[in-house]
Amino acid sequence: MTEKKKTTIVLFSGDYDKAMAAYIIANGAAAYDHEVTIFHTFWGLNALRKEEIIPVKKGFMEKMFGKMMPRGADKMGLSKMNFAGFGPKMIKDIMKRHNAMPLPQLIEMAQEEQDIKLVACTMTMDLLGLKQEELLDQIEYAGVAAYLADAQDGNVNLFI
Amino acid sequence: MTEKKKTTIVLFSGDYDKAMAAYIIANGAAAYDHEVTIFHTFWGLNALRKEEIIPVKKGFMEKMFGKMMPRGADKMGLSKMNFAGFGPKMIKDIMKRHNAMPLPQLIEMAQEEQDIKLVACTMTMDLLGLKQEELLDQIEYAGVAAYLADAQDGNVNLFI
Amino acid sequence: MTEKKKTTIVLFSGDYDKAMAAYIIANGAAAYDHEVTIFHTFWGLNALRKEEIIPVKKGFMEKMFGKMMPRGADKMGLSKMNFAGFGPKMIKDIMKRHNAMPLPQLIEMAQEEQDIKLVACTMTMDLLGLKQEELLDQIEYAGVAAYLADAQDGNVNLFI
Repeated sequence: MTEKKKTTIVLFSGDYDKAMAAYIIANGAAAYDHEVTIFHTFWGLNALRKEEIIPVKKGFMEKMFGKMMPRGADKMGLSKMNFAGFGPKMIKDIMKRHNAMPLPQLIEMAQEEQDIKLVACTMTMDLLGLKQEELLDQIEYAGVAAYLADAQDGNVNLFI
Repeated sequence: MTEKKKTTIVLFSGDYDKAMAAYIIANGAAAYDHEVTIFHTFWGLNALRKEEIIPVKKGFMEKMFGKMMPRGADKMGLSKMNFAGFGPKMIKDIMKRHNAMPLPQLIEMAQEEQDIKLVACTMTMDLLGLKQEELLDQIEYAGVAAYLADAQDGNVNLFI
Repeated sequence: MTEKKKTTIVLFSGDYDKAMAAYIIANGAAAYDHEVTIFHTFWGLNALRKEEIIPVKKGFMEKMFGKMMPRGADKMGLSKMNFAGFGPKMIKDIMKRHNAMPLPQLIEMAQEEQDIKLVACTMTMDLLGLKQEELLDQIEYAGVAAYLADAQDGNVNLFI
């Protein structure tokens, strides 16, 4: 019996386009029968935020960060040609016309895929003041040690 | 008989300096006798654009993207200290004085190297409205599945 | 006897947050008993700069780059929400209150760790006009070939 191949992605970036690339690779790898982990850290955590405002107790700095960061995948900007939010609108419009899946749907697809594990980095959640209640349900919580345990047996390891 | 080692690079970025890093690693890996794939996606596709304007039929949005994105490697900006195009001039000037290869020449070198495969991601070409006629000759066209087929046996897999 | 696992990181980015991620992964991997290499290239070299001004002979362009680039890890900006330097202050303030290690300390920790090798890319040092005297002591100097020699046996290879 051969072991399953493994893909791990550190999603550090909070850009719509980079998160799209991460999720397209992740969904592709799962279709290719890989075990996949996306480890969301720093700004990449924003892809996991719920759209609605969740009332949680926070300090001043954490509240500020929480307000300034995009609330969920759909609100994220582009890494290039963002043009104050016009770029993402263009891309989304084009994607619709080409029947390409928008990011929130790519994330949903990954959530439904048994072989994809979505992980939120607890250390950076703490730094950015994000609470579990604010993130999507059914994700896992872990630190860098758990990431490395997956990555060291990974066939494809990417930092995005 | 031992198999050749493999290096795969996803070139997502459209920055001159990051593309330089990608091509320096790729050319180095080929010199090291690796089989190399550079999979150009999103803004990284701009590194493969021809400099001249190629007349192709496009929709309005695709035309706009086509105009706003740099036409070829030489037109790309820096990821840091771009200073409205002054940064790239500085870097190129310094490179010339140090006899370092500029990006277009690094790409040419890669094209001439049998063990380097330059691939354009068809899905993002479609999104950004780029046509095959607009990209360099003798490159390959593929999707995420082909990338993963290469990467899962890769020794060095990078996302740049 | 089993060989040690290997982690290699190309630190291309000159952002405080990305360098933090790189060093957290590196220190984590060393704790996990990996042999670790961080190959600093382009803007990532700034993480290795000494804070004090070191008098060295430089051409005009090299002097300008030297002045414009952050002098050491503590001066680096954020990849997101930098707000002209306010973002890094916020992050550092939060980190202090959470007892998280700031970047200069993460680098010190890595320097003390026998299994972590900090390497400065000589080619890009040359381009950016950085001299060995300006960088931290006890680091190594190498080119892309040395990086590839490490990376091709790496279990976890990342480009940050």
